[in-house]
Amino acid sequence: MRFGSLEAGGTKMVMGILNENMQILRSTTCLTRTPEETMPDILDFFEGEHLDAVGIATFGPVNLNENSSEYGNITSTPKLAWRNFPLYRTMVDTLKVPCLVDTDVNAAALAEATYGAARNLNNCLYITVGTGIGGGLLCEGKLVHGMLHPEWGHIPLSRHEDDPLTRGICPYHTLCLEGLASGPSIQNRWGVPANELLEDHRAWDLEAFYLAQLCVTALMTVSTERIILGGGVMNQSVLFPKIREKLSEMLGGYLQHPRIENLEELVCPPALTPNSGLIGGALLAKRAYEST
Amino acid sequence: MRFGSLEAGGTKMVMGILNENMQILRSTTCLTRTPEETMPDILDFFEGEHLDAVGIATFGPVNLNENSSEYGNITSTPKLAWRNFPLYRTMVDTLKVPCLVDTDVNAAALAEATYGAARNLNNCLYITVGTGIGGGLLCEGKLVHGMLHPEWGHIPLSRHEDDPLTRGICPYHTLCLEGLASGPSIQNRWGVPANELLEDHRAWDLEAFYLAQLCVTALMTVSTERIILGGGVMNQSVLFPKIREKLSEMLGGYLQHPRIENLEELVCPPALTPNSGLIGGALLAKRAYEST
Repeated sequence: MRFGSLEAGGTKMVMGILNENMQILRSTTCLTRTPEETMPDILDFFEGEHLDAVGIATFGPVNLNENSSEYGNITSTPKLAWRNFPLYRTMVDTLKVPCLVDTDVNAAALAEATYGAARNLNNCLYITVGTGIGGGLLCEGKLVHGMLHPEWGHIPLSRHEDDPLTRGICPYHTLCLEGLASGPSIQNRWGVPANELLEDHRAWDLEAFYLAQLCVTALMTVSTERIILGGGVMNQSVLFPKIREKLSEMLGGYLQHPRIENLEELVCPPALTPNSGLIGGALLAKRAYEST
Repeated sequence: MRFGSLEAGGTKMVMGILNENMQILRSTTCLTRTPEETMPDILDFFEGEHLDAVGIATFGPVNLNENSSEYGNITSTPKLAWRNFPLYRTMVDTLKVPCLVDTDVNAAALAEATYGAARNLNNCLYITVGTGIGGGLLCEGKLVHGMLHPEWGHIPLSRHEDDPLTRGICPYHTLCLEGLASGPSIQNRWGVPANELLEDHRAWDLEAFYLAQLCVTALMTVSTERIILGGGVMNQSVLFPKIREKLSEMLGGYLQHPRIENLEELVCPPALTPNSGLIGGALLAKRAYEST
Protein backbone atom coordinates (compact mmCIF):
# COMPACT_ATOMS: atom_id res chain seq x y z
CA MET A 1 0.00 0.00 0.00
CA ARG A 2 1.09 3.51 -0.82
CA PHE A 3 -0.89 6.46 0.48
CA GLY A 4 -0.25 10.00 -0.62
CA SER A 5 -0.75 12.80 1.89
CA LEU A 6 -0.87 16.52 1.26
CA GLU A 7 -0.81 18.85 4.26
CA ALA A 8 -1.75 22.17 2.71
CA GLY A 9 -0.81 24.96 5.10
CA GLY A 10 -1.05 28.69 4.82
CA THR A 11 2.72 29.13 4.63
CA LYS A 12 3.97 25.76 3.40
CA MET A 13 2.84 22.57 1.75
CA VAL A 14 4.01 19.20 3.02
CA MET A 15 3.73 16.18 0.73
CA GLY A 16 4.38 12.63 1.84
CA ILE A 17 4.14 9.00 0.79
CA LEU A 18 3.20 6.67 3.64
CA ASN A 19 2.70 2.94 3.86
CA GLU A 20 -0.28 1.17 5.44
CA ASN A 21 1.40 1.38 8.85
CA MET A 22 1.54 5.13 8.42
CA GLN A 23 5.30 5.17 8.22
CA ILE A 24 6.55 8.12 6.19
CA LEU A 25 8.53 6.71 3.28
CA ARG A 26 9.32 10.03 1.68
CA SER A 27 8.29 13.62 2.22
CA THR A 28 9.10 17.10 1.07
CA THR A 29 7.88 20.64 1.56
CA CYS A 30 7.44 23.72 -0.59
CA LEU A 31 6.26 27.23 0.09
CA THR A 32 2.58 28.08 -0.39
CA ARG A 33 2.56 30.57 -3.21
CA THR A 34 -0.32 30.80 -5.68
CA PRO A 35 -2.10 27.68 -6.96
CA GLU A 36 -0.51 28.26 -10.39
CA GLU A 37 2.98 28.18 -8.88
CA THR A 38 2.43 25.59 -6.15
CA MET A 39 0.22 22.91 -7.67
CA PRO A 40 2.80 21.75 -10.27
CA ASP A 41 5.30 21.10 -7.43
CA ILE A 42 2.68 19.14 -5.51
CA LEU A 43 1.55 17.07 -8.46
CA ASP A 44 5.15 16.42 -9.55
CA PHE A 45 5.85 14.93 -6.14
CA PHE A 46 3.00 12.44 -6.32
CA GLU A 47 2.98 11.51 -10.01
CA GLY A 48 4.44 8.14 -10.94
CA GLU A 49 4.15 6.91 -7.35
CA HIS A 50 1.48 4.20 -7.92
CA LEU A 51 -0.63 5.51 -5.05
CA ASP A 52 -3.62 3.57 -3.76
CA ALA A 53 -5.29 6.75 -2.54
CA VAL A 54 -4.52 10.26 -1.44
CA GLY A 55 -5.65 12.40 1.48
CA ILE A 56 -5.72 16.17 1.70
CA ALA A 57 -5.37 17.94 5.06
CA THR A 58 -5.84 21.57 4.21
CA PHE A 59 -6.14 25.04 5.67
CA GLY A 60 -9.69 26.30 5.60
CA PRO A 61 -12.31 27.26 5.11
CA VAL A 62 -12.88 24.35 2.77
CA ASN A 63 -16.02 22.71 1.42
CA LEU A 64 -16.35 19.28 3.07
CA ASN A 65 -19.79 18.40 1.76
CA GLU A 66 -19.19 15.18 -0.18
CA ASN A 67 -22.45 15.66 -2.05
CA SER A 68 -21.42 19.06 -3.36
CA SER A 69 -19.90 19.64 -6.79
CA GLU A 70 -17.57 22.01 -4.94
CA TYR A 71 -16.29 19.36 -2.51
CA GLY A 72 -12.68 20.08 -1.62
CA ASN A 73 -12.76 23.67 -2.86
CA ILE A 74 -11.04 26.24 -0.68
CA THR A 75 -13.75 28.84 0.04
CA SER A 76 -13.65 32.30 1.68
CA THR A 77 -9.96 32.44 2.63
CA PRO A 78 -8.12 35.77 2.96
CA LYS A 79 -5.43 34.13 0.76
CA LEU A 80 -7.08 35.55 -2.33
CA ALA A 81 -5.18 33.44 -4.87
CA TRP A 82 -6.63 30.32 -3.26
CA ARG A 83 -10.21 31.53 -2.94
CA ASN A 84 -12.56 29.03 -4.61
CA PHE A 85 -9.60 26.95 -5.77
CA PRO A 86 -10.72 23.35 -6.53
CA LEU A 87 -7.98 21.56 -4.58
CA TYR A 88 -9.69 18.16 -4.53
CA ARG A 89 -10.67 18.30 -8.20
CA THR A 90 -7.16 19.31 -9.30
CA MET A 91 -5.56 16.47 -7.34
CA VAL A 92 -8.05 13.80 -8.41
CA ASP A 93 -8.10 14.77 -12.08
CA THR A 94 -4.34 14.36 -12.25
CA LEU A 95 -3.67 11.49 -9.86
CA LYS A 96 -6.84 9.50 -10.67
CA VAL A 97 -7.03 7.74 -7.29
CA PRO A 98 -9.61 7.86 -4.48
CA CYS A 99 -9.24 10.99 -2.35
CA LEU A 100 -10.68 12.38 0.87
CA VAL A 101 -10.37 15.96 2.13
CA ASP A 102 -10.57 17.39 5.62
CA THR A 103 -9.15 20.36 7.49
CA ASP A 104 -5.49 20.16 8.54
CA VAL A 105 -6.56 20.28 12.18
CA ASN A 106 -9.26 17.61 11.82
CA ALA A 107 -6.62 15.40 10.17
CA ALA A 108 -4.22 16.10 13.03
CA ALA A 109 -6.95 15.23 15.55
CA LEU A 110 -7.53 11.95 13.72
CA ALA A 111 -3.80 11.15 13.72
CA GLU A 112 -3.42 11.94 17.41
CA ALA A 113 -6.50 9.83 18.24
CA THR A 114 -5.13 6.93 16.20
CA TYR A 115 -1.47 6.91 17.22
CA GLY A 116 -0.75 9.90 19.44
CA ALA A 117 -1.82 11.85 22.49
CA ALA A 118 -5.47 10.74 22.28
CA ARG A 119 -4.83 7.10 21.41
CA ASN A 120 -7.77 4.85 22.33
CA LEU A 121 -10.06 7.80 22.90
CA ASN A 122 -13.22 8.59 20.94
CA ASN A 123 -13.15 12.28 21.75
CA CYS A 124 -10.39 14.83 21.35
CA LEU A 125 -9.79 18.41 20.36
CA TYR A 126 -6.62 19.40 18.47
CA ILE A 127 -5.80 23.10 18.58
CA THR A 128 -2.96 24.85 16.82
CA VAL A 129 -1.85 28.19 18.26
CA GLY A 130 0.37 30.00 15.78
CA THR A 131 -0.13 32.66 13.13
CA GLY A 132 -3.80 31.82 13.46
CA ILE A 133 -5.71 29.54 15.81
CA GLY A 134 -7.67 26.58 14.49
CA GLY A 135 -9.21 23.48 15.96
CA GLY A 136 -10.07 19.98 14.79
CA LEU A 137 -12.62 17.91 16.65
CA LEU A 138 -13.32 14.23 17.06
CA CYS A 139 -16.60 13.40 18.83
CA GLU A 140 -17.69 9.84 19.56
CA GLY A 141 -15.16 8.57 17.02
CA LYS A 142 -16.32 10.85 14.21
CA LEU A 143 -14.53 13.86 12.76
CA VAL A 144 -16.97 16.73 13.14
CA HIS A 145 -17.89 18.76 10.07
CA GLY A 146 -21.36 20.05 10.85
CA MET A 147 -22.46 22.88 8.60
CA LEU A 148 -18.94 23.84 7.46
CA HIS A 149 -16.35 22.57 9.92
CA PRO A 150 -15.38 23.57 13.46
CA GLU A 151 -13.24 26.70 13.74
CA TRP A 152 -12.44 27.20 17.43
CA GLY A 153 -10.18 30.15 16.60
CA HIS A 154 -13.08 32.58 16.77
CA ILE A 155 -14.89 31.50 19.93
CA PRO A 156 -15.91 34.52 22.04
CA LEU A 157 -13.83 35.10 25.20
CA SER A 158 -13.81 37.38 28.21
CA ARG A 159 -11.06 40.00 28.20
CA HIS A 160 -8.50 39.82 31.00
CA GLU A 161 -8.93 42.95 33.12
CA ASP A 162 -5.19 43.68 32.95
CA ASP A 163 -4.89 43.14 29.20
CA PRO A 164 -3.25 46.24 27.66
CA LEU A 165 -5.41 45.62 24.59
CA THR A 166 -9.06 46.64 24.85
CA ARG A 167 -9.89 44.48 21.84
CA GLY A 168 -8.23 41.66 19.93
CA ILE A 169 -6.64 42.05 16.52
CA CYS A 170 -9.23 39.97 14.66
CA PRO A 171 -10.88 42.14 12.01
CA TYR A 172 -14.20 40.32 12.51
CA HIS A 173 -14.57 40.07 16.29
CA THR A 174 -13.86 42.36 19.23
CA LEU A 175 -12.97 39.57 21.65
CA CYS A 176 -12.20 36.18 20.13
CA LEU A 177 -9.53 33.59 20.81
CA GLU A 178 -7.49 34.22 17.66
CA GLY A 179 -7.69 37.97 18.11
CA LEU A 180 -6.42 37.73 21.69
CA ALA A 181 -4.07 34.74 21.77
CA SER A 182 -2.54 34.05 18.33
CA GLY A 183 1.13 34.75 17.68
CA PRO A 184 0.45 38.05 15.89
CA SER A 185 -1.83 39.22 18.72
CA ILE A 186 0.98 38.55 21.23
CA GLN A 187 3.41 40.51 19.09
CA ASN A 188 0.90 43.32 18.70
CA ARG A 189 0.33 43.49 22.45
CA TRP A 190 3.97 43.44 23.60
CA GLY A 191 5.82 44.80 20.60
CA VAL A 192 8.08 41.77 20.18
CA PRO A 193 7.49 38.34 18.63
CA ALA A 194 6.18 35.66 21.00
CA ASN A 195 9.36 33.60 20.70
CA GLU A 196 11.42 36.51 22.06
CA LEU A 197 9.38 36.90 25.24
CA LEU A 198 11.13 35.37 28.26
CA GLU A 199 9.30 32.79 30.31
CA ASP A 200 8.78 35.13 33.26
CA HIS A 201 7.07 37.77 31.07
CA ARG A 202 3.49 38.40 32.09
CA ALA A 203 2.51 37.82 28.47
CA TRP A 204 2.35 34.15 29.36
CA ASP A 205 -0.11 34.70 32.21
CA LEU A 206 -2.45 36.45 29.82
CA GLU A 207 -1.91 33.79 27.17
CA ALA A 208 -2.68 31.06 29.71
CA PHE A 209 -5.80 32.95 30.81
CA TYR A 210 -7.15 32.93 27.25
CA LEU A 211 -6.15 29.36 26.43
CA ALA A 212 -7.65 28.15 29.72
CA GLN A 213 -10.94 29.75 28.68
CA LEU A 214 -10.70 27.75 25.47
CA CYS A 215 -10.25 24.60 27.55
CA VAL A 216 -13.28 25.44 29.72
CA THR A 217 -15.33 25.95 26.57
CA ALA A 218 -14.13 22.62 25.16
CA LEU A 219 -15.08 20.78 28.33
CA MET A 220 -18.46 22.48 28.67
CA THR A 221 -19.52 22.17 25.03
CA VAL A 222 -18.31 18.74 23.92
CA SER A 223 -16.95 17.28 27.16
CA THR A 224 -13.84 16.28 25.26
CA GLU A 225 -11.48 13.68 26.70
CA ARG A 226 -8.23 15.30 25.50
CA ILE A 227 -7.25 18.86 24.62
CA ILE A 228 -4.12 18.77 22.48
CA LEU A 229 -2.41 22.13 22.10
CA GLY A 230 0.17 22.49 19.35
CA GLY A 231 1.59 25.21 17.12
CA GLY A 232 4.51 27.61 17.46
CA VAL A 233 3.22 29.60 20.42
CA MET A 234 2.99 26.43 22.52
CA ASN A 235 6.77 26.01 22.25
CA GLN A 236 6.99 28.26 25.31
CA SER A 237 7.19 25.49 27.88
CA VAL A 238 5.93 27.60 30.76
CA LEU A 239 2.50 27.74 29.11
CA PHE A 240 1.19 24.25 29.85
CA PRO A 241 1.51 24.45 33.65
CA LYS A 242 0.03 27.95 33.64
CA ILE A 243 -2.93 26.89 31.47
CA ARG A 244 -3.67 23.90 33.68
CA GLU A 245 -3.56 26.06 36.81
CA LYS A 246 -5.90 28.66 35.33
CA LEU A 247 -8.21 25.96 33.97
CA SER A 248 -8.55 24.37 37.38
CA GLU A 249 -9.31 27.76 38.88
CA MET A 250 -11.89 28.61 36.21
CA LEU A 251 -13.71 25.27 36.47
CA GLY A 252 -14.15 26.06 40.15
CA GLY A 253 -14.82 22.44 41.04
CA TYR A 254 -17.94 22.31 38.88
CA LEU A 255 -16.99 19.27 36.78
CA GLN A 256 -16.28 16.11 38.72
CA HIS A 257 -14.47 13.30 36.94
CA PRO A 258 -11.17 11.46 37.44
CA ARG A 259 -9.84 13.00 34.20
CA ILE A 260 -10.33 16.48 35.66
CA GLU A 261 -8.04 15.44 38.51
CA ASN A 262 -5.35 14.67 35.95
CA LEU A 263 -4.93 17.86 33.97
CA GLU A 264 -1.43 16.89 32.77
CA GLU A 265 -3.03 14.19 30.70
CA LEU A 266 -6.20 16.10 29.79
CA VAL A 267 -4.38 19.18 28.44
CA CYS A 268 -1.26 18.10 26.61
CA PRO A 269 1.02 18.65 23.60
CA PRO A 270 0.64 16.58 20.44
CA ALA A 271 2.64 13.34 20.39
CA LEU A 272 3.25 13.19 16.64
CA THR A 273 4.79 16.65 16.05
CA PRO A 274 5.62 17.69 13.37
CA ASN A 275 3.81 14.91 11.54
CA SER A 276 0.25 14.98 12.95
CA GLY A 277 -1.12 16.61 9.80
CA LEU A 278 0.83 14.46 7.34
CA ILE A 279 -0.14 11.22 9.10
CA GLY A 280 -3.71 12.49 9.36
CA GLY A 281 -3.75 13.06 5.62
CA ALA A 282 -2.61 9.49 5.02
CA LEU A 283 -5.33 8.22 7.37
CA LEU A 284 -7.83 10.10 5.22
CA ALA A 285 -6.31 8.42 2.16
CA LYS A 286 -6.74 5.05 3.84
CA ARG A 287 -10.40 5.83 4.47
CA ALA A 288 -10.83 6.89 0.86
CA TYR A 289 -9.28 3.60 -0.24
CA GLU A 290 -11.41 1.50 2.11
CA SER A 291 -14.64 3.16 1.04
CA THR A 292 -14.16 2.29 -2.65
CA MET B 1 -44.26 -2.39 20.48
CA ARG B 2 -44.51 -0.55 23.78
CA PHE B 3 -41.71 1.74 24.88
CA GLY B 4 -41.54 3.30 28.32
CA SER B 5 -40.05 6.76 28.66
CA LEU B 6 -39.05 8.59 31.82
CA GLU B 7 -38.15 12.25 31.56
CA ALA B 8 -36.59 12.94 34.92
CA GLY B 9 -36.49 16.68 35.52
CA GLY B 10 -35.36 18.74 38.45
CA THR B 11 -38.88 19.82 39.35
CA LYS B 12 -41.08 17.15 37.81
CA MET B 13 -41.00 13.65 36.40
CA VAL B 14 -42.85 12.79 33.20
CA MET B 15 -43.61 9.16 32.44
CA GLY B 16 -45.01 7.92 29.17
CA ILE B 17 -45.84 4.83 27.15
CA LEU B 18 -45.20 5.26 23.42
CA ASN B 19 -45.66 2.98 20.44
CA GLU B 20 -43.07 2.29 17.74
CA ASN B 21 -44.23 5.38 15.84
CA MET B 22 -43.45 7.44 18.91
CA GLN B 23 -47.08 8.26 19.54
CA ILE B 24 -47.74 8.92 23.20
CA LEU B 25 -50.36 6.38 24.32
CA ARG B 26 -50.46 7.45 27.95
CA SER B 27 -48.46 9.82 30.11
CA THR B 28 -48.49 11.34 33.56
CA THR B 29 -46.35 13.59 35.70
CA CYS B 30 -45.39 13.78 39.35
CA LEU B 31 -43.28 16.17 41.39
CA THR B 32 -39.59 15.41 41.87
CA ARG B 33 -39.27 14.86 45.58
CA THR B 34 -36.73 12.44 47.06
CA PRO B 35 -35.98 9.12 45.38
CA GLU B 36 -37.75 7.34 48.26
CA GLU B 37 -40.94 9.28 47.62
CA THR B 38 -40.75 9.56 43.82
CA MET B 39 -39.50 6.20 42.60
CA PRO B 40 -42.57 4.22 43.76
CA ASP B 41 -44.80 6.54 41.68
CA ILE B 42 -42.57 6.10 38.65
CA LEU B 43 -42.37 2.33 38.94
CA ASP B 44 -46.12 2.04 39.60
CA PHE B 45 -46.76 3.81 36.32
CA PHE B 46 -44.67 1.40 34.27
CA GLU B 47 -45.33 -1.89 36.01
CA GLY B 48 -47.71 -4.28 34.30
CA GLU B 49 -47.33 -2.47 30.97
CA HIS B 50 -45.53 -5.26 29.05
CA LEU B 51 -42.84 -2.87 27.87
CA ASP B 52 -40.31 -3.89 25.23
CA ALA B 53 -37.75 -1.44 26.56
CA VAL B 54 -37.47 1.75 28.55
CA GLY B 55 -35.49 4.96 28.05
CA ILE B 56 -34.44 7.45 30.70
CA ALA B 57 -33.94 11.12 29.81
CA THR B 58 -32.65 12.63 33.00
CA PHE B 59 -31.32 15.79 34.58
CA GLY B 60 -27.57 15.60 35.14
CA PRO B 61 -24.88 15.19 35.86
CA VAL B 62 -25.35 11.50 35.20
CA ASN B 63 -22.90 8.68 34.52
CA LEU B 64 -23.28 7.69 30.84
CA ASN B 65 -20.35 5.29 30.66
CA GLU B 66 -21.98 2.01 29.63
CA ASN B 67 -18.96 0.08 30.84
CA SER B 68 -19.22 1.50 34.34
CA SER B 69 -20.93 -0.29 37.21
CA GLU B 70 -22.34 3.14 38.02
CA TYR B 71 -23.98 3.62 34.60
CA GLY B 72 -27.14 5.66 34.97
CA ASN B 73 -26.29 6.94 38.43
CA ILE B 74 -27.04 10.60 39.10
CA THR B 75 -23.69 12.06 40.24
CA SER B 76 -22.71 15.44 41.74
CA THR B 77 -26.10 17.18 41.65
CA PRO B 78 -26.97 19.95 44.10
CA LYS B 79 -30.24 17.98 44.63
CA LEU B 80 -28.66 16.16 47.57
CA ALA B 81 -31.30 13.44 47.90
CA TRP B 82 -30.52 12.33 44.34
CA ARG B 83 -26.73 12.42 44.62
CA ASN B 84 -25.33 9.03 43.60
CA PHE B 85 -28.83 7.62 43.16
CA PRO B 86 -28.78 4.54 40.87
CA LEU B 87 -31.63 5.56 38.57
CA TYR B 88 -30.85 3.05 35.82
CA ARG B 89 -30.28 0.18 38.24
CA THR B 90 -33.51 0.89 40.12
CA MET B 91 -35.56 0.97 36.92
CA VAL B 92 -33.98 -2.12 35.35
CA ASP B 93 -34.11 -4.24 38.50
CA THR B 94 -37.84 -3.66 38.74
CA LEU B 95 -38.94 -3.51 35.10
CA LYS B 96 -36.50 -6.15 33.79
CA VAL B 97 -36.39 -4.77 30.23
CA PRO B 98 -33.55 -3.27 28.16
CA CYS B 99 -32.86 0.34 29.10
CA LEU B 100 -30.73 3.21 27.85
CA VAL B 101 -29.98 6.45 29.69
CA ASP B 102 -29.00 9.88 28.43
CA THR B 103 -29.40 13.46 29.55
CA ASP B 104 -32.83 15.04 29.14
CA VAL B 105 -31.35 17.55 26.70
CA ASN B 106 -29.50 14.95 24.63
CA ALA B 107 -32.77 13.01 24.40
CA ALA B 108 -34.57 16.18 23.31
CA ALA B 109 -31.88 16.81 20.68
CA LEU B 110 -32.39 13.27 19.39
CA ALA B 111 -36.17 13.72 19.24
CA GLU B 112 -35.90 17.05 17.42
CA ALA B 113 -33.39 15.57 14.95
CA THR B 114 -35.69 12.61 14.32
CA TYR B 115 -39.09 14.28 14.06
CA GLY B 116 -38.75 17.96 14.87
CA ALA B 117 -36.87 21.18 14.18
CA ALA B 118 -33.67 19.40 13.07
CA ARG B 119 -35.32 16.65 11.03
CA ASN B 120 -32.99 15.18 8.40
CA LEU B 121 -29.96 16.86 9.95
CA ASN B 122 -26.96 15.09 11.46
CA ASN B 123 -25.97 18.01 13.67
CA CYS B 124 -28.01 19.98 16.15
CA LEU B 125 -27.80 21.62 19.53
CA TYR B 126 -30.80 21.65 21.88
CA ILE B 127 -30.63 24.24 24.65
CA THR B 128 -33.11 24.74 27.44
CA VAL B 129 -33.17 28.15 29.10
CA GLY B 130 -35.12 27.99 32.32
CA THR B 131 -34.29 27.55 35.99
CA GLY B 132 -30.94 26.36 34.74
CA ILE B 133 -29.41 26.19 31.27
CA GLY B 134 -28.42 22.89 29.72
CA GLY B 135 -27.56 21.65 26.26
CA GLY B 136 -27.76 18.40 24.34
CA LEU B 137 -25.62 17.85 21.28
CA LEU B 138 -25.86 15.69 18.20
CA CYS B 139 -22.72 15.66 16.03
CA GLU B 140 -22.50 13.70 12.78
CA GLY B 141 -25.53 11.67 13.82
CA LYS B 142 -24.17 10.70 17.24
CA LEU B 143 -25.30 11.96 20.62
CA VAL B 144 -22.17 13.40 22.21
CA HIS B 145 -21.14 12.15 25.63
CA GLY B 146 -17.38 12.62 25.67
CA MET B 147 -15.86 12.47 29.13
CA LEU B 148 -19.13 13.11 31.00
CA HIS B 149 -21.65 14.80 28.73
CA PRO B 150 -21.93 18.29 27.25
CA GLU B 151 -23.14 20.98 29.64
CA TRP B 152 -23.34 24.22 27.66
CA GLY B 153 -24.86 26.02 30.66
CA HIS B 154 -21.46 26.92 32.02
CA ILE B 155 -19.61 28.14 28.93
CA PRO B 156 -17.62 31.32 29.65
CA LEU B 157 -19.11 34.55 28.25
CA SER B 158 -18.21 38.20 27.95
CA ARG B 159 -20.17 40.50 30.22
CA HIS B 160 -22.35 43.12 28.54
CA GLU B 161 -20.90 46.54 29.43
CA ASP B 162 -24.33 47.79 30.51
CA ASP B 163 -25.20 44.77 32.62
CA PRO B 164 -26.16 45.97 36.12
CA LEU B 165 -24.61 42.76 37.44
CA THR B 166 -20.80 42.65 37.60
CA ARG B 167 -20.90 38.88 37.89
CA GLY B 168 -23.41 36.13 37.25
CA ILE B 169 -25.26 34.25 39.98
CA CYS B 170 -23.51 30.91 39.35
CA PRO B 171 -21.70 29.87 42.52
CA TYR B 172 -18.90 28.27 40.45
CA HIS B 173 -18.17 30.82 37.72
CA THR B 174 -17.93 34.61 37.56
CA LEU B 175 -19.21 34.90 33.99
CA CYS B 176 -20.98 31.86 32.58
CA LEU B 177 -24.13 31.44 30.52
CA GLU B 178 -26.28 30.01 33.31
CA GLY B 179 -25.09 32.62 35.78
CA LEU B 180 -25.97 35.46 33.38
CA ALA B 181 -28.97 34.26 31.38
CA SER B 182 -31.01 31.67 33.31
CA GLY B 183 -34.43 32.54 34.67
CA PRO B 184 -33.16 33.09 38.24
CA SER B 185 -30.36 35.36 36.98
CA ILE B 186 -32.90 37.50 35.15
CA GLN B 187 -35.01 37.73 38.30
CA ASN B 188 -31.92 38.56 40.35
CA ARG B 189 -30.90 41.32 37.94
CA TRP B 190 -34.27 43.06 37.56
CA GLY B 191 -36.04 42.15 40.77
CA VAL B 192 -39.03 40.52 39.06
CA PRO B 193 -39.54 37.11 37.47
CA ALA B 194 -38.68 36.86 33.76
CA ASN B 195 -42.29 36.17 32.81
CA GLU B 196 -43.37 39.51 34.32
CA LEU B 197 -40.94 41.59 32.26
CA LEU B 198 -42.66 43.33 29.34
CA GLU B 199 -41.34 42.78 25.86
CA ASP B 200 -39.89 46.29 25.58
CA HIS B 201 -37.84 45.88 28.78
CA ARG B 202 -34.10 46.12 28.15
CA ALA B 203 -33.74 42.80 30.01
CA TRP B 204 -34.41 41.15 26.68
CA ASP B 205 -31.58 42.98 24.91
CA LEU B 206 -29.16 41.70 27.53
CA GLU B 207 -30.65 38.22 27.36
CA ALA B 208 -30.32 38.21 23.57
CA PHE B 209 -26.71 39.41 23.87
CA TYR B 210 -25.83 36.42 26.06
CA LEU B 211 -27.80 33.85 24.06
CA ALA B 212 -26.28 35.16 20.82
CA GLN B 213 -22.83 34.53 22.31
CA LEU B 214 -23.94 30.97 22.99
CA CYS B 215 -24.94 30.68 19.32
CA VAL B 216 -21.57 32.03 18.16
CA THR B 217 -19.83 29.49 20.37
CA ALA B 218 -21.99 26.68 18.98
CA LEU B 219 -21.19 27.65 15.40
CA MET B 220 -17.47 28.11 16.05
CA THR B 221 -16.95 24.94 18.09
CA VAL B 222 -19.12 22.30 16.42
CA SER B 223 -20.42 24.15 13.36
CA THR B 224 -23.88 22.91 14.23
CA GLU B 225 -26.66 22.96 11.64
CA ARG B 226 -29.48 23.90 14.01
CA ILE B 227 -29.63 25.71 17.34
CA ILE B 228 -32.91 24.86 19.06
CA LEU B 229 -33.72 27.10 22.01
CA GLY B 230 -36.43 25.94 24.39
CA GLY B 231 -37.35 26.35 28.04
CA GLY B 232 -39.51 28.81 29.94
CA VAL B 233 -37.42 31.93 29.32
CA MET B 234 -37.79 31.46 25.55
CA ASN B 235 -41.55 31.96 25.86
CA GLN B 236 -40.83 35.68 25.53
CA SER B 237 -41.43 35.91 21.80
CA VAL B 238 -39.36 39.03 21.32
CA LEU B 239 -36.22 37.03 22.11
CA PHE B 240 -35.76 35.08 18.88
CA PRO B 241 -35.57 38.12 16.56
CA LYS B 242 -33.26 39.88 18.99
CA ILE B 243 -30.94 36.88 19.28
CA ARG B 244 -30.73 36.48 15.51
CA GLU B 245 -29.93 40.16 15.07
CA LYS B 246 -27.18 40.07 17.69
CA LEU B 247 -25.81 36.81 16.33
CA SER B 248 -25.50 38.26 12.85
CA GLU B 249 -23.73 41.30 14.30
CA MET B 250 -21.34 39.17 16.38
CA LEU B 251 -20.42 36.84 13.52
CA GLY B 252 -19.36 39.94 11.62
CA GLY B 253 -19.55 38.17 8.27
CA TYR B 254 -16.85 35.69 9.23
CA LEU B 255 -18.77 32.49 8.48
CA GLN B 256 -20.04 32.15 4.94
CA HIS B 257 -22.70 29.55 4.23
CA PRO B 258 -26.28 29.62 2.93
CA ARG B 259 -27.52 28.51 6.37
CA ILE B 260 -26.00 31.64 7.92
CA GLU B 261 -28.12 33.69 5.55
CA ASN B 262 -31.19 31.99 6.97
CA LEU B 263 -31.02 32.62 10.71
CA GLU B 264 -34.77 32.01 11.18
CA GLU B 265 -34.16 28.40 10.37
CA LEU B 266 -30.73 28.11 12.01
CA VAL B 267 -31.85 29.48 15.40
CA CYS B 268 -35.33 28.26 16.17
CA PRO B 269 -37.73 26.93 18.82
CA PRO B 270 -38.27 23.20 19.34
CA ALA B 271 -41.02 21.66 17.22
CA LEU B 272 -42.09 18.95 19.67
CA THR B 273 -42.75 21.06 22.77
CA PRO B 274 -43.57 19.94 25.41
CA ASN B 275 -42.77 16.39 24.36
CA SER B 276 -39.17 16.56 23.07
CA GLY B 277 -37.80 14.89 26.20
CA LEU B 278 -40.50 12.23 26.47
CA ILE B 279 -40.20 11.27 22.79
CA GLY B 280 -36.41 11.34 23.12
CA GLY B 281 -36.65 8.92 26.02
CA ALA B 282 -38.75 6.55 23.90
CA LEU B 283 -36.19 6.80 21.09
CA LEU B 284 -33.56 5.74 23.62
CA ALA B 285 -35.80 2.82 24.57
CA LYS B 286 -36.06 1.86 20.92
CA ARG B 287 -32.27 1.89 20.65
CA ALA B 288 -32.01 -0.24 23.76
CA TYR B 289 -34.46 -2.70 22.24
CA GLU B 290 -32.69 -2.81 18.89
CA SER B 291 -29.29 -3.40 20.45
CA THR B 292 -30.41 -6.53 22.32
